[in-house]
Amino acid sequence: MAKNIKTRDQDYPQWYLDVIKAGDLAEHSPVRGCMVIKPHGYAIWELIQEQFDRRFKATGHVNAYFPLFIPKSFLAKEAAHVEGFAMECAVVTHSGLRPDGKGSIEPHGKLEEELIIRPTSETIIGHMFANWVQSWRDLPLLINQWANVVRWELRTRLFLRTMEFLWQEGHTAHESAEEAEEETRRMLEVYRETVEDELAVPVLKGEKSPSERFAGADRTYCIEAMMQDGKALQAGTSHNLGQNFAKAFEIQFQDRNQELDHVYTTSWGVSTRLVGALIMAHSDDEGLVLPPHVAPVLAAIVPIYRKDEEREAVLAYAKEILTRLYGEGGAEALAAVESGIGSKEIVSLVLPNASRGQRIVLDLRDTLRPPEKFFHWEQRGVPLRIEVGPRDLQNKKAMVAERPTREKGAVDAAALDRAWLDTKLAAQQKLLFERALAMRKANTHAVDDYDALKAGVEAGGFYLMHWDGTDETEAKIKAETKATIRCIPFDDVIETAEGPVSTREAGTDPVSGKPSEGRVVFARAY
Amino acid sequence: MAKNIKTRDQDYPQWYLDVIKAGDLAEHSPVRGCMVIKPHGYAIWELIQEQFDRRFKATGHVNAYFPLFIPKSFLAKEAAHVEGFAMECAVVTHSGLRPDGKGSIEPHGKLEEELIIRPTSETIIGHMFANWVQSWRDLPLLINQWANVVRWELRTRLFLRTMEFLWQEGHTAHESAEEAEEETRRMLEVYRETVEDELAVPVLKGEKSPSERFAGADRTYCIEAMMQDGKALQAGTSHNLGQNFAKAFEIQFQDRNQELDHVYTTSWGVSTRLVGALIMAHSDDEGLVLPPHVAPVLAAIVPIYRKDEEREAVLAYAKEILTRLYGEGGAEALAAVESGIGSKEIVSLVLPNASRGQRIVLDLRDTLRPPEKFFHWEQRGVPLRIEVGPRDLQNKKAMVAERPTREKGAVDAAALDRAWLDTKLAAQQKLLFERALAMRKANTHAVDDYDALKAGVEAGGFYLMHWDGTDETEAKIKAETKATIRCIPFDDVIETAEGPVSTREAGTDPVSGKPSEGRVVFARAY
Repeated sequence: MAKNIKTRDQDYPQWYLDVIKAGDLAEHSPVRGCMVIKPHGYAIWELIQEQFDRRFKATGHVNAYFPLFIPKSFLAKEAAHVEGFAMECAVVTHSGLRPDGKGSIEPHGKLEEELIIRPTSETIIGHMFANWVQSWRDLPLLINQWANVVRWELRTRLFLRTMEFLWQEGHTAHESAEEAEEETRRMLEVYRETVEDELAVPVLKGEKSPSERFAGADRTYCIEAMMQDGKALQAGTSHNLGQNFAKAFEIQFQDRNQELDHVYTTSWGVSTRLVGALIMAHSDDEGLVLPPHVAPVLAAIVPIYRKDEEREAVLAYAKEILTRLYGEGGAEALAAVESGIGSKEIVSLVLPNASRGQRIVLDLRDTLRPPEKFFHWEQRGVPLRIEVGPRDLQNKKAMVAERPTREKGAVDAAALDRAWLDTKLAAQQKLLFERALAMRKANTHAVDDYDALKAGVEAGGFYLMHWDGTDETEAKIKAETKATIRCIPFDDVIETAEGPVSTREAGTDPVSGKPSEGRVVFARAY
Repeated sequence: MAKNIKTRDQDYPQWYLDVIKAGDLAEHSPVRGCMVIKPHGYAIWELIQEQFDRRFKATGHVNAYFPLFIPKSFLAKEAAHVEGFAMECAVVTHSGLRPDGKGSIEPHGKLEEELIIRPTSETIIGHMFANWVQSWRDLPLLINQWANVVRWELRTRLFLRTMEFLWQEGHTAHESAEEAEEETRRMLEVYRETVEDELAVPVLKGEKSPSERFAGADRTYCIEAMMQDGKALQAGTSHNLGQNFAKAFEIQFQDRNQELDHVYTTSWGVSTRLVGALIMAHSDDEGLVLPPHVAPVLAAIVPIYRKDEEREAVLAYAKEILTRLYGEGGAEALAAVESGIGSKEIVSLVLPNASRGQRIVLDLRDTLRPPEKFFHWEQRGVPLRIEVGPRDLQNKKAMVAERPTREKGAVDAAALDRAWLDTKLAAQQKLLFERALAMRKANTHAVDDYDALKAGVEAGGFYLMHWDGTDETEAKIKAETKATIRCIPFDDVIETAEGPVSTREAGTDPVSGKPSEGRVVFARAY
């Protein structure tokens, strides 16, 4: 098979792009900085969405939708916010186009007030909350929105940093500072749980240093993941906005003592960059590897036959295995698909009691030879590939290849059922998390002098180092090493390659020589 | 209870807005023409999405995501398309804002080429398809996108016509004209089935007259529904785009005879205006009525007690009924919610095997009296309200109120289980469809002279009239009556108040006096 993917050692950034291309996940669009999320990439995003959405709903949040457009004047109301976002905003100035008489069309209908395309929705939602809240009885407001946002970026990278991206943004309002803080931390924990349990990506929870806070927040918490090149990726953030937006947008309420007060708000978001995190955390030199919980196709069955007389028997056998894996009602599900419209070339059964859209497929395409089919499913990160040929039929076996380990072995056909499938997938889910956790541990180190940090971040990895807590030292380190404080970790102890390290013991900042209250996590980041 | 909804007879347009407000579905936003979809409205949209999405997937379509921004030059490539959309496009001209020194912020960073915010995505998707298709083996391409689009509108109405709206747009490419036509009609049928079976809104399938075609289509098919004021609402459209976009964007492929040809494309869409259709089709003077298949809350249990000593027993009884309605595992589900975070005031159980998000609730709020709670759930269109008080407890009964009929009666508690719930809901679903169908029939008439049409459309309703097939006659009728040809119907026979009427018998256009091949549907429309 032609090698269409650079190895990670050869060229890590190119490897990432090659994996995306080979996995048919996304492409650049003709508008610079925007991407097209192709069906396989979007199916992964749908599964990620579903995992978050059910947890948001289980914690009492409801979805709503706010406008794409924000009046320019809104952005200016919160001083830190406008400073953070103004230069990244796409601005709509006209409401139509008309022929210019020279064969082109030109903007027409200048707007009285320019509209901003939301880079995030605190301002417009703050404005609406002000209408919705009168009394403490109206609180808490627990709202989430799934939407597209735009932040003008020129240095973009598929999934990780794009001008337009898809995300969810939670926006809540509370009676008290304590409740808002509790919510901010609760949603951070929801993020940790989802990213670790479903995406199989281990993360460190922590707080951002003041210079890395969201524009307008009192406190920003984050989850930080390590990619295979040792760089950090911020996988989600949760912001305690205090009363900043409530004051800017006059979100006032009568409290339990009949006094007028401003609400306390939070916001929190994860985005399509998580698809990038998935790719970089698990994939290998052969292409995409997906944790089963977010894999659109869980198993692909590839029939193998050379002669026409083998074809019928092998296909019947492959279908028997397909229905066995499906479990109860498999034969009916297959019959329904075969009589339906869909693609006849890849039979695709949506699995009962799996996440929406998760399925097993039987690859009947005549245009590809078996090795091409193996390659196809491997590069799409399908956890299990099941090959069935004339000899397997004779021996009542099937050849099973596991994507994460690329191990291959014969399994008795009688053993192939839904329970077997679920067990295999659960084991892969666990393996991927543990593999990523071991990788992080092996690339996490405590450092006590600045030169060690400099050399370390150059090679990649997380570095636990004392910090004096000042913006100046942080800025100096960033300028000299391109490393930033990824977080002030919540964990008292973090596992490193050399063993557990306390983050709470006082010490000395090796850069400034000033005292430090504990170690923070330094790394270069995406 | 204060009457917060105008009756339909008093003021139909105000009634519509009042129902939306009372049902807490949506609000105008500070940006003129845009709306905020509030949680209850958005939950309905999520259920509608789910019903369509599963059918799209079952017919072999996959979801993807294309950029919000379209280069200005793309729009100009298809002549009819640009003519149809240019004046409605929001135009992005700048990529940032900066302080102007006078306390305001002004657009900064003028773009080389202006970007259009998608009013629809044929052009950008056509551009991508050109890269994706080389051979007949790459066809058909069956793609769908759930997204927001923007069309500049100044006369807007919540859900029915807004500047930004949410929708799905299907985009497919095929080898042959026949396949494209088959797809166009298949998706129209998917629309009919979903709108009739899930939204309980009867529709007429048909073809649009040339003047009402989508800008750039060879043929546009539609489903048309009748609202309670007798006006038509276009509920979905499916377009056969022929080779128009393929030629504009050079989507070429090598066919089975090794010859280069342009693909044949289709597009089809439904939007958040369906929420408006739902409201106008089923609601009554008391507020929202929802067909159970798209009702976020299926049943609301309201406990009634006056004295504190009644409270505990009534609540225990109400919980017993809640868990009975839930079915197997109800007690565990209740315990999980009670130990969880969520709102403690409204216990909300997501029903197993229902659509995602469908639930039954127990209203424990202390801030509202029982009649206020009845009102609350009634105005939100909840199909079943179940009242339980001390006397019901004593008699082992519950009082059940059905939203569509507002009938109320005692039911034995022993009869209240999941099967009872499903049966009641199925009956309501059927009733709403039949009620809407009877309403349409009673307001559909054949007319053979122009004065009858004029008088008819003034009063509302669908009018089956002969048409000579010319743009001129159609334009004259529109100018004089504000009625348009809603469709050239597919049905050979349409039921009217006066009995079945053939649409296929030749006749005479009463406006022009010219011959006509059959009757078409005239009506005023939203």
